[in-house]
Amino acid sequence: MSDVASGLARLSLNQRTIPRWSLPELVDHCGKAGLGAVGLWREPVLEYGVARTAALVRDAGLRVSSLCRGGFFTSPEQAQWEAAIEDNLRALDEAAALGAECVVLVVGGMAAGSTDLIGARQRVHEALAVLAPAARERGVRLALEPLHPIFCADRAVLSTLRQALELAEAVDGAPGAPTVGVVVDAYHVWWDPDVWSAIAAAGPRILSFQVCDWVLPLTEDVLLARGMMGDGYIDLRALRSAVDSAGYAGDIEVEIFNQALWDSDPEVVLDTVVQRYSAHVL
Amino acid sequence: MSDVASGLARLSLNQRTIPRWSLPELVDHCGKAGLGAVGLWREPVLEYGVARTAALVRDAGLRVSSLCRGGFFTSPEQAQWEAAIEDNLRALDEAAALGAECVVLVVGGMAAGSTDLIGARQRVHEALAVLAPAARERGVRLALEPLHPIFCADRAVLSTLRQALELAEAVDGAPGAPTVGVVVDAYHVWWDPDVWSAIAAAGPRILSFQVCDWVLPLTEDVLLARGMMGDGYIDLRALRSAVDSAGYAGDIEVEIFNQALWDSDPEVVLDTVVQRYSAHVL
Repeated sequence: MSDVASGLARLSLNQRTIPRWSLPELVDHCGKAGLGAVGLWREPVLEYGVARTAALVRDAGLRVSSLCRGGFFTSPEQAQWEAAIEDNLRALDEAAALGAECVVLVVGGMAAGSTDLIGARQRVHEALAVLAPAARERGVRLALEPLHPIFCADRAVLSTLRQALELAEAVDGAPGAPTVGVVVDAYHVWWDPDVWSAIAAAGPRILSFQVCDWVLPLTEDVLLARGMMGDGYIDLRALRSAVDSAGYAGDIEVEIFNQALWDSDPEVVLDTVVQRYSAHVL
Repeated sequence: MSDVASGLARLSLNQRTIPRWSLPELVDHCGKAGLGAVGLWREPVLEYGVARTAALVRDAGLRVSSLCRGGFFTSPEQAQWEAAIEDNLRALDEAAALGAECVVLVVGGMAAGSTDLIGARQRVHEALAVLAPAARERGVRLALEPLHPIFCADRAVLSTLRQALELAEAVDGAPGAPTVGVVVDAYHVWWDPDVWSAIAAAGPRILSFQVCDWVLPLTEDVLLARGMMGDGYIDLRALRSAVDSAGYAGDIEVEIFNQALWDSDPEVVLDTVVQRYSAHVL
């Protein structure tokens, strides 16, 4: 293995970074480029077929670093909450079939017109109490993703790594081989003065590490405001070093939602991902 | 005093909520509406004259709940950093002349192209170490404002109330009658799972309490995304109750940056502020 290729052994490309590629194209390009893994989304996996996807990825010698995503547990309507649980159980089965390292959970925001943030968090807690044993039975790990506080009202009432860690500990008592852990997504946590000690405290509960960059100005749809590593304000190497020091030896997943990138030549995007990963993350 | 009027004794209108009013108009309308205070900005105060403004407000029986604003201490260039200190010393003199309850400090963001968040925070700490004794000499209080993490890169590397409190404690050892304290601005802190215990811990260091609401969708310029109390996701009464329980008995300042509001009839805006304050904050 060349120096470059061995340096890419932990690199994973989340498929939404290059949504124009089909699953076979994604797996083919990532395999040839020497990446170690891909991050997959449920919708394209279901469309292609779960078993077919599993075989495709395995035959290319790749891991599935994460399956995106479960979550959205915050409905105050019981029927909707239960439907979310059912959907998450299906995600667990898919993750088990794929051999995915974890299922990423975006827990959901607040109901329109609600000011009951504490109640919404409580419903997340209740959902995790149901899903943690179901995940353990299936040998699947649940990765709670704290989202940047900009998304607190509409996407995730879980806003800090510390909060995610405390929830994981509350619903899953086995820190040695945890079923419930956390995602450290640089974009969501970089601003947090507590992030360094929260990473150290998370230790074996770090189930996923994701990178991109915080760039300005924000786009009108802030979901698409993410930048390529090296283009913004995040000290990605410091975060990578911190998760490594906490014992994380898993994949490093590049997940960038950005319209300009989506409009670019996919092969150029992958080349840039590889180059920026080497320059700013490793 | 009527029930309504006595209920407004702590209400303060930040002048940027209705920027169309001149200082005399602002003071006249707020005084007649029964408010207890106004929040002022340095630029219009300097234009009108500091001593004239002080007399105007005093003659109307109002307090100056805050002077906005000092800060912007994060330049890595020594000359710029020193210029910021000089400007902040002038703000202290203005606040002393106005008898303002505090000077609000927005500490500043990161230099363009920088990933040195920790260094930027260090320069803030160094600035406060210089300004705290200068404020104490003048009998002026410095209120550190943590800004929503959305502003970490470009406006304030101080992102949580806990972080602001720890900085205040580090540069000012007198918790009984603090010179350096914090602003609790609902818009900036409402998402924080730690905000309740941070408010309790802040106690007498709470120097300002500001309210507006988090509304969606965000505007393209997120500075102007703030909503009227009651229009969004923040449980303002819970936050008001928490700061009261922590011992804060000062003004409750309404600060809303919103283009639609700025385009509205100022008297209607003030009426709405009073009504929403009574319905959602008191």
